[in-house]
Amino acid sequence: MAGEIVVPGFRWGGLEAGIRKRPGRPDLALLIADEPAVAAAVFTQSDMAAAPVQLSRPVAATGRARAVLMNAGCANACTGEAGFEAARRMAASLQQAAGIAPTEVLTASTGVIGALLPAEKIEARIADLVAAARPEGIRDFSLAIMTTDTREKVASKQGTVGGKTVTVAGVCKGAGMIMPNMATMLACVATDASIEAAPLSALLRSAVWPSFNAVTVDGDTSTNDTLYLLASGKAANEKITSERDAAYGELLALVREVCIELAKKIAADGEGATKFVEVSVEEARDENEADVIARRIANSPLVKTAWHAADANWGRIMAAAGTCGFSLDPSKVSIEVSGVPLVRGGVGLGAAAEDAATEKMKGPAFVVTVKLSRGAAQRSVFTCDYSADYVKINAEYRT
Amino acid sequence: MAGEIVVPGFRWGGLEAGIRKRPGRPDLALLIADEPAVAAAVFTQSDMAAAPVQLSRPVAATGRARAVLMNAGCANACTGEAGFEAARRMAASLQQAAGIAPTEVLTASTGVIGALLPAEKIEARIADLVAAARPEGIRDFSLAIMTTDTREKVASKQGTVGGKTVTVAGVCKGAGMIMPNMATMLACVATDASIEAAPLSALLRSAVWPSFNAVTVDGDTSTNDTLYLLASGKAANEKITSERDAAYGELLALVREVCIELAKKIAADGEGATKFVEVSVEEARDENEADVIARRIANSPLVKTAWHAADANWGRIMAAAGTCGFSLDPSKVSIEVSGVPLVRGGVGLGAAAEDAATEKMKGPAFVVTVKLSRGAAQRSVFTCDYSADYVKINAEYRT
Repeated sequence: MAGEIVVPGFRWGGLEAGIRKRPGRPDLALLIADEPAVAAAVFTQSDMAAAPVQLSRPVAATGRARAVLMNAGCANACTGEAGFEAARRMAASLQQAAGIAPTEVLTASTGVIGALLPAEKIEARIADLVAAARPEGIRDFSLAIMTTDTREKVASKQGTVGGKTVTVAGVCKGAGMIMPNMATMLACVATDASIEAAPLSALLRSAVWPSFNAVTVDGDTSTNDTLYLLASGKAANEKITSERDAAYGELLALVREVCIELAKKIAADGEGATKFVEVSVEEARDENEADVIARRIANSPLVKTAWHAADANWGRIMAAAGTCGFSLDPSKVSIEVSGVPLVRGGVGLGAAAEDAATEKMKGPAFVVTVKLSRGAAQRSVFTCDYSADYVKINAEYRT
Repeated sequence: MAGEIVVPGFRWGGLEAGIRKRPGRPDLALLIADEPAVAAAVFTQSDMAAAPVQLSRPVAATGRARAVLMNAGCANACTGEAGFEAARRMAASLQQAAGIAPTEVLTASTGVIGALLPAEKIEARIADLVAAARPEGIRDFSLAIMTTDTREKVASKQGTVGGKTVTVAGVCKGAGMIMPNMATMLACVATDASIEAAPLSALLRSAVWPSFNAVTVDGDTSTNDTLYLLASGKAANEKITSERDAAYGELLALVREVCIELAKKIAADGEGATKFVEVSVEEARDENEADVIARRIANSPLVKTAWHAADANWGRIMAAAGTCGFSLDPSKVSIEVSGVPLVRGGVGLGAAAEDAATEKMKGPAFVVTVKLSRGAAQRSVFTCDYSADYVKINAEYRT
């Protein structure tokens, strides 16, 4: 699928600039638009937002960009004034190499927090990177932003928008420190649709909620979460100018599909993960209630370790749901695992039910459905199990 | 220390009743008062409160009790009507064995959620347990309530209250599913002080906040958290009738000390823990802000795994603090590890500082201090690191 994805109007590239502690992997990624593209962005809500996030916010606010430049190996977060200056140099590096002003460059960084970005390493390789960028280069981009990811994450869809064939393709990274709060990990999505900046921004926000904002690996929110969406207009559909245009809904559906596919790839590739789990809380009073409960379950270390052992320990799910402050009535709660009923009226259905659920949980992916019998709202969250490897990966991350 | 602790007016006991899945360990514990004692209690805030919690709430509300009966091996939570009936039989078992009415018995259970309590096993052994109870039996009690605990947890203090020597002794259990929310894990504290029910209840609530409510192992709150405090009056101090009595403050100090010691034992014995960590958030605007930030840091899997590796990865601490919604200014944050400065003005102090902090972190206990420079409030939370054993213990808990 990552083979020959091309989004008209864009070139992608990646190469090794030596930013990572250990050599041998690409760590600098570039998306470049042939002509200025319409752009939208969502950033981390962390108070400790990294320098590239602070630098890119006003760029994204203009609704227009020529390039996205990302690096792995250094988050350039909590680096003070020096870090901000390094991020500035990163953005400015495309001025000479490609004639792109810093005010048209969106940047993002990922890696260890607290380490200063070596801007000179980017400056030394930026011309090569511009030369290497090509329409079919999306996989090069994806490889260059991976950290503890074990697989590159690329997704694309084609569909009809305003009567024209439109392509949406995206790439993301993320395996740990992942519970985006109104934002996401590093992700970059491009489309050839023609759309104005205001509806593109609205569209991105709508697409984020059921996708990247539904992912949680460990309940930690990064200082660097960033999602960019660029539109080249090359599909030549009648320009979308409002959320009320029929074509807006068509494009939103495509972008949402790509984002959900990318988000699921992040959950499935969670650090140390052996299982992808969707937690669906249903019959809640409102979506916020469903979201809080789904996240509490998905982030409970006790629930996640039980999943790891394919243990249908529904008591831990009940316990997690019961501490969210919504005064749930346990006698109304039911739980299913991939369609197998496990709890009815707050009480377990016995050993045979647990055995059947365990069979489902032995697979690489399953759905935990919690029904509250008190409303009509629903929310799905994407997560994974907790293995001893999670601890190993994170205890040894810097050593 | 657990050797010859005696609280005048009380006898303690423990024996094996066969409630645990695997035989060979005691699982039924009894505290019996020679005469009706004044009693206070704090329970879990979970919506899914276990049957013994539901049953004991009205008993505790009377301010008086003759016995505390606890079991390990079965939480009797999420067990519906049948579970409530089993808890009722548990409390009633002391009627024939010791002439104590069910309305004077406080109960608590710990173990797997969703399994029904085998009340007949308690009924079969209760007479033996009453006979075995003795003034020096506090360790028997403590052994009988352990689950994944690796060590029994007993603490005691003596001091002067209203001019008389008063003893306070307590026992608790808890290693996982531990982040009490206005309540605690299973704990039972006894004193020979003379005090009325209303000030005893107030005193218990004051003692819980800096002790059991400051503990977090994994951010999960149990369905069964219970703390009982019984007072026999045998010390013959002038009866404390109000929070304004001078003796009230003296007794509070003793009880608080015992509770803090017990709470620290729980954190130090967290499932898979290799290090005890106190997280102290200082210079916060108010205590709630300090509490939320301290808990967020203490519950972050990324922070906890870094502690496990003695990695002074302060970026993860900054990241955790930055997502609590308090709009912190990173440039005002400083971090120390057991007195070693690691971060000033939101920026790391370099490799030498990290090396010095790592040395402190290699020990079995250290303090992480986060100063916010925006107020005078402080909050300490007690926690531990995250090891691969935590996952192992919890993945295999029921298997």
